[in-house]
Amino acid sequence: MQPITVLVTGANRGIGLELVRQIVARQNPPKHVFATCRDPDRAKDLQALAKDTPSIEIVKLDVTDYATLRNTVVPHVQSKVGDLGLNLLINNAGLLLRHDLSTVTPEAMREVYEVNTIAPVMITQAFLPLLKAASARATGGLSCSRAAVINITSKVGSCADNQSGKHYPYRCSKAALNIATVSMSVDLKGDGILAAVLHPGWVKTQMGGSNAIHELSDSVKGMLDVMDRLTENETGKFFEWKGNEIPW
Amino acid sequence: MQPITVLVTGANRGIGLELVRQIVARQNPPKHVFATCRDPDRAKDLQALAKDTPSIEIVKLDVTDYATLRNTVVPHVQSKVGDLGLNLLINNAGLLLRHDLSTVTPEAMREVYEVNTIAPVMITQAFLPLLKAASARATGGLSCSRAAVINITSKVGSCADNQSGKHYPYRCSKAALNIATVSMSVDLKGDGILAAVLHPGWVKTQMGGSNAIHELSDSVKGMLDVMDRLTENETGKFFEWKGNEIPW
Repeated sequence: MQPITVLVTGANRGIGLELVRQIVARQNPPKHVFATCRDPDRAKDLQALAKDTPSIEIVKLDVTDYATLRNTVVPHVQSKVGDLGLNLLINNAGLLLRHDLSTVTPEAMREVYEVNTIAPVMITQAFLPLLKAASARATGGLSCSRAAVINITSKVGSCADNQSGKHYPYRCSKAALNIATVSMSVDLKGDGILAAVLHPGWVKTQMGGSNAIHELSDSVKGMLDVMDRLTENETGKFFEWKGNEIPW
Repeated sequence: MQPITVLVTGANRGIGLELVRQIVARQNPPKHVFATCRDPDRAKDLQALAKDTPSIEIVKLDVTDYATLRNTVVPHVQSKVGDLGLNLLINNAGLLLRHDLSTVTPEAMREVYEVNTIAPVMITQAFLPLLKAASARATGGLSCSRAAVINITSKVGSCADNQSGKHYPYRCSKAALNIATVSMSVDLKGDGILAAVLHPGWVKTQMGGSNAIHELSDSVKGMLDVMDRLTENETGKFFEWKGNEIPW
């Protein structure tokens, strides 16, 4: 894929930061990479990366602050990309709270759903005009070069794979994100926009914790390889970072 | 199945009311059927049914009022059933708001998730001691006679079946309810409690609307037939009212 404009949420650390790092290091890198995070002042690693890479712009965004998203962030990105629109939106920001049936609370269910499900839907809605603009400039089939929404989910959101139970707030939010992505793939296909969910593996990040088994760089490399290969045949599907399709 | 104690939420009309009607009309009907609804004073059809059927008790419950659930409703049911516990919990109450990607709002996403996903999880958590008590009295495998959580979902919550997109708040809430039910089936199997999701079909109710194709009585009869047949082999699965398994 060779998107000209990319936006990644939750880019201050972990998978989001590594996505930005690897995307700008590709051959024919994008002209604009918007790296959003809640608190740019504290995102030292992202700052250091952006300092050496003029295509990266750090944008302040709490993904659940829909007023700022719509009134400030989208107009700003629009002003920077102009007619190029937005080729690739990666909804990566996510929240993990661990609760079993005895400890789950309405507050935990709401908080995780807000970040992991509602925010990606509202961000996609807000950037839809820019995604459509990017798609309209291109010809050919669906791809992450033309226009795409990639939602970072988890295999923990697979009903078919749920052999170990628990994790109500997180599992529910990711299963919901998965079906929202399927709806996006149906709703946006006619506009030439692809949508898919990717599972990064159990990655050695702050969220992944100390028992995680996959290297961050391998996971992100794998997910970018998957994005390279996505076409209209794969829109609306669920892939892990190694490229295997995951059952719902 | 021959549960001795049953609780059905959203029993004032539609599928919930018909579930209560058919359950009390079965051979060897339950001793206690708790029919919950937000506003018993306005539930005239349920009142009329309960008047002729001493086993039905109408219980006031807004499914999202977790304080009343925990502090009033569960203790009241406990006081009525005593050592019998609760054999069958049917989380039926649900909310449908129709939104596509251009109209969806955070408020609609939150409201539908609260009723359709968070409430069934919190109600199951709250009644877990009674479900365990019922299960502990019985021997043999899992069944809706012994102890079961039946969550009324919709095929609209199936990722695999999502060919028509849209419906973000409702699809997300039901996909989330589905995976929560799978977690319940895993988490509660050791306690002898079954959990499954049932799709009632597109039923001629107020929610189903004027284009619905299935008769209410047929749908509920079918779902009760499915419940009759559920065993440990079916716990954690997704069935439509005719008994066919639905892919996730």
